[in-house]
Amino acid sequence: MTEQTQQFASDNYSGICPEAWAAMDKANQGHERAYGDDQWTAKAADHFRKLFETDCEVFFAFNGTAANSLALSSLCQSYHSVICSETAHVETDECGAPEFFSNGSKLLTARSENGKLTPESIREVALKRQDIHYPKPRVVTITQATEVGSVYRPEELKAISDTCKELGLNLHMDGARFSNACAFLGCTPAELTWKAGIDVLCFGGTKNGMAVGEAILFFNHKLAEDFDYRCKQAGQLASKMRFLSAPWVGLLEDGAWLRHAQHANQCAQLLSGLVADIPSVQLMFPVEANGVFLQMPEPALEALREKGWRFYTFIGSGGARFMCSWDTDQARVRELAADIRAVTLG
Amino acid sequence: MTEQTQQFASDNYSGICPEAWAAMDKANQGHERAYGDDQWTAKAADHFRKLFETDCEVFFAFNGTAANSLALSSLCQSYHSVICSETAHVETDECGAPEFFSNGSKLLTARSENGKLTPESIREVALKRQDIHYPKPRVVTITQATEVGSVYRPEELKAISDTCKELGLNLHMDGARFSNACAFLGCTPAELTWKAGIDVLCFGGTKNGMAVGEAILFFNHKLAEDFDYRCKQAGQLASKMRFLSAPWVGLLEDGAWLRHAQHANQCAQLLSGLVADIPSVQLMFPVEANGVFLQMPEPALEALREKGWRFYTFIGSGGARFMCSWDTDQARVRELAADIRAVTLG
Amino acid sequence: MTEQTQQFASDNYSGICPEAWAAMDKANQGHERAYGDDQWTAKAADHFRKLFETDCEVFFAFNGTAANSLALSSLCQSYHSVICSETAHVETDECGAPEFFSNGSKLLTARSENGKLTPESIREVALKRQDIHYPKPRVVTITQATEVGSVYRPEELKAISDTCKELGLNLHMDGARFSNACAFLGCTPAELTWKAGIDVLCFGGTKNGMAVGEAILFFNHKLAEDFDYRCKQAGQLASKMRFLSAPWVGLLEDGAWLRHAQHANQCAQLLSGLVADIPSVQLMFPVEANGVFLQMPEPALEALREKGWRFYTFIGSGGARFMCSWDTDQARVRELAADIRAVTLG
Amino acid sequence: MTEQTQQFASDNYSGICPEAWAAMDKANQGHERAYGDDQWTAKAADHFRKLFETDCEVFFAFNGTAANSLALSSLCQSYHSVICSETAHVETDECGAPEFFSNGSKLLTARSENGKLTPESIREVALKRQDIHYPKPRVVTITQATEVGSVYRPEELKAISDTCKELGLNLHMDGARFSNACAFLGCTPAELTWKAGIDVLCFGGTKNGMAVGEAILFFNHKLAEDFDYRCKQAGQLASKMRFLSAPWVGLLEDGAWLRHAQHANQCAQLLSGLVADIPSVQLMFPVEANGVFLQMPEPALEALREKGWRFYTFIGSGGARFMCSWDTDQARVRELAADIRAVTLG
Repeated sequence: MTEQTQQFASDNYSGICPEAWAAMDKANQGHERAYGDDQWTAKAADHFRKLFETDCEVFFAFNGTAANSLALSSLCQSYHSVICSETAHVETDECGAPEFFSNGSKLLTARSENGKLTPESIREVALKRQDIHYPKPRVVTITQATEVGSVYRPEELKAISDTCKELGLNLHMDGARFSNACAFLGCTPAELTWKAGIDVLCFGGTKNGMAVGEAILFFNHKLAEDFDYRCKQAGQLASKMRFLSAPWVGLLEDGAWLRHAQHANQCAQLLSGLVADIPSVQLMFPVEANGVFLQMPEPALEALREKGWRFYTFIGSGGARFMCSWDTDQARVRELAADIRAVTLG
Repeated sequence: MTEQTQQFASDNYSGICPEAWAAMDKANQGHERAYGDDQWTAKAADHFRKLFETDCEVFFAFNGTAANSLALSSLCQSYHSVICSETAHVETDECGAPEFFSNGSKLLTARSENGKLTPESIREVALKRQDIHYPKPRVVTITQATEVGSVYRPEELKAISDTCKELGLNLHMDGARFSNACAFLGCTPAELTWKAGIDVLCFGGTKNGMAVGEAILFFNHKLAEDFDYRCKQAGQLASKMRFLSAPWVGLLEDGAWLRHAQHANQCAQLLSGLVADIPSVQLMFPVEANGVFLQMPEPALEALREKGWRFYTFIGSGGARFMCSWDTDQARVRELAADIRAVTLG
Repeated sequence: MTEQTQQFASDNYSGICPEAWAAMDKANQGHERAYGDDQWTAKAADHFRKLFETDCEVFFAFNGTAANSLALSSLCQSYHSVICSETAHVETDECGAPEFFSNGSKLLTARSENGKLTPESIREVALKRQDIHYPKPRVVTITQATEVGSVYRPEELKAISDTCKELGLNLHMDGARFSNACAFLGCTPAELTWKAGIDVLCFGGTKNGMAVGEAILFFNHKLAEDFDYRCKQAGQLASKMRFLSAPWVGLLEDGAWLRHAQHANQCAQLLSGLVADIPSVQLMFPVEANGVFLQMPEPALEALREKGWRFYTFIGSGGARFMCSWDTDQARVRELAADIRAVTLG
Repeated sequence: MTEQTQQFASDNYSGICPEAWAAMDKANQGHERAYGDDQWTAKAADHFRKLFETDCEVFFAFNGTAANSLALSSLCQSYHSVICSETAHVETDECGAPEFFSNGSKLLTARSENGKLTPESIREVALKRQDIHYPKPRVVTITQATEVGSVYRPEELKAISDTCKELGLNLHMDGARFSNACAFLGCTPAELTWKAGIDVLCFGGTKNGMAVGEAILFFNHKLAEDFDYRCKQAGQLASKMRFLSAPWVGLLEDGAWLRHAQHANQCAQLLSGLVADIPSVQLMFPVEANGVFLQMPEPALEALREKGWRFYTFIGSGGARFMCSWDTDQARVRELAADIRAVTLG
């Protein structure tokens, strides 16, 4: 299989972007103090605080599984529960990591619309059981952009955080594709997080062009107490931390994080636009971030595979996910669209 | 503080070596499948199997804390205990990570000589308590090279593994500086592991010149059952895995792993040789790997610090650790030695 | 509220039965060795082995939450999953205990018919996901009698255990009301457990007339390795163990365990028979054990409550659970039935 | 072995005292609500609040392992550590339960004098390490009376709690033999707990004459948040709770808890007095509670065993522990003393 055919399977099939690479190169000069006590880590944290226009607490973890699980663990105890959508990555694709890191916190799935929780669906789950025989709801986690490519608007976030406050729930945002949400809405990171009532954000770097690494931002300082110890104990403190933090400097210092997301989003728009008129191809969810979810006949999917295209079909029979990334080639998008047309009209 | 003064504080103050960097660069071409299902990861695993002359199971983790803790967890249950030396990194510097990953396995410290466990000290701890009110010993972990720079000989390893087999204990090796041990003894990796009865090795890449990453090698296949799930759940499965595995290819394909270790060891020998005749400076442990532990008067240590040198002094009053790494400059070693002479004779 | 009105809320509202009480009284003579090293505990274990006609391993725990959670933990690792019905007590009423004891094993709910899993529903869940991003199914747990009062037949158990063997799954039985199942089917304990392929049974004592205590029986000896340590570490080893084990002797030595269950079952049959002809009252599940689940208009339920009756309504709108126990008074059953008739026909 | 010879092996070899038994008998009338929602549990909690002269939060657990482990878990997180004496039961005899319940909190042992921690020994351990690579001290646990039979004075407790406050440490008291401490000092329970700065007390019922059960008293209300959920999840919520709480009513309502402790203490005093003049027998620790620790020649211990006496010798070569309980027979104490005299002078 060539690299080109794989371009739409996942946004983590892509490599390291030039900005991150250059920063790693610069960071790789001489010796630096270990475990985050270095200038690059300080600089990256400052960039985050500037970008988010607030004095948030910044931590770094190796991947999203750990970042989200550690963040959730810091928001509840083992006998508490975490409300998430049925399609939430923490529920469907983390192999029980949130339960492991928290020593048993149960995930409670709530109804979602286009992958998004609502105040009503949260309330429904939060108030369903109030007795001691069921884990007490303590956290809500939402994914921005969602696993099906939709994006929460600021007012939707505000409504959710109001509900959380009323019910005594902490609010976590899984931002594996946070930059794609910012790019789509044209909102500032602040507007989509602490200004909308988010307590903790896990900001994804890997899908945005880094080799490895996510940032965890606490807007609620109290919840961050001793979080550095939590990371260390859970095997998430890098000794040569500069190689996790320097790429963030590369991404943040001149806006590459946003440009990459804009590019990926545009590719997704391009793809969905190109296939919009094909009768046997239906859009499953609105295209707001970098993913396009298409329903088409099973034989068409098979034909696409035979042409060498790779994509996930976990969304149900006939559903296919095409992900665009920071380095997606628009010519390839057009080729893919043409092939979709060919196999469905054929 | 300049990078030069920091050269002896820790071997993880160093950066990425050229071989690892070049491999990452090569790996950063186009798209690759995620989560280890890529050609680089397959290649790295094959290199390990070739180097160790056996069909071992190979896994990758982000750092040593996680690699060791996951490996230990796979060797025992929460109500079991792990025998280690009082100076073992898992006991003194992992912030309770082994206890966290294993959900409560207790570490039992045994007497060590120059940082090394012996069959006698293991037996002593293993047989001390046999009742249900104390966690049942199930694993022995040894560090090769040890935290104080000494190295287990093959016959010492064999004697320990014989004791383990007799007592029903699994044997784990923390090889954060395994390459330094190989370099010192001139032994093959096989001779220092499975041929000597080691069940699992955590082979350190970070201190050997990688940005991030350790390899976990199971010589006992049965113990590796579902270990991939364990890694995933614990937040140790990289999505862009190629950037963890490719550097290993760089290190292993032409022997850089050993050359780097030999260089670091030679620098340590050079340093200890240069200060050997200073009356007020005593060698605390035999210099066998890349660390030099020197006892000297407290004012001398203070004077060294004032000259800008950085080193750890956790070994007790008057003890200082100087670590050499793959990129240590021999000229700097001479300068350091000269300064030690100056401050102690002054 | 008087004790009489509460008679149907739960079978653990009842007290200690005479046989258990008398045994505790006998056991309360003089001193005995602690932690299960006493004659009563040995005797109780022997009674179990005789009753089950096999040399099983017998352990005691304080309650069902712990017994089931410890048993499940011994059948899988944290990155494995446990298949259960949506109505399983471990899923709905243990406050995340299985997840806590196992350090994160996820419960996967499967479709059930009348509270019972089937080979098909197990297969459906077990084979749904085979990738590393989802916890690997390793255990099936079934409740006998189920939470809705139905009972698995020996051939149903056999079909399930065959499926489990085929799929590499261990099979656990939550027997909080195991005696009621035996009483209903007229089967021997052996027929409903190891002869049908059950690996581990948690046999409920509390609902059968004990103050506190459940027995855990391993028919698969290998799975019981070091289970005594597991119990101790998890706070489930009683120092004055004789007071947990002696009541079992009282229940088992002359068949009281079965008589109590038969009585409770008969009361349930009586109740369901007495209301069978009321048009606005529907039986929600077949009455096979000691619980009667009735659907009736909400105002009728309210009227019943006003008459002082207590019952659970967790089964959904208009559904009420009436539980009978070893000491249920048949006269009270008739009174309840009459009141149901009055409020629904009124 | 007859019950009489076992009288001094452990205070949990004794049975249920008459007061506890009578209360269980009374509680065993009719039906009661489950899970602590009953009149006996309310009454027992009120008795504790009256006895301790404060509005503390009261919870019940099955045994001391669980009570202490749950209490400690509520005082820290997994990456924190717990300071205890080397002889603390949580360190030496709980099979890693505190580590299990807390998901990895490390126990740090501090020097003790006669089994008692001091402000100095606590400070020494608490301040030894302040870096992220070692679990952050967050709790001190002391045992009252200690495992070697000594008792903390109110002013000693006050000095310890002052140190804890200064260092940001919560203070837990393992009161498996709390009543023996009260009896020895003639202090009120309040004077030995919250008035002296204790945050949480685990009050032992089993050794005081109950079949099973410990009470957990939080004087610091904030630390008790959701502790009921913690107990439930950890398998420590009894369904027929009345049988755990009623015995407490029996012990507390007319002072039996104190009389029992006084009796046991007096027996210990009697024993130590009777052997005080034997030259080859040395008292290892001051006799302040219900245990007598005697050093005597190994052959003498062997001779005692041959006469049928049972005792523990875990204190080191030649050391033997003789425990008195609420039902110890003074005639038997004299027989034991006579035999000790015989075997040592023989």
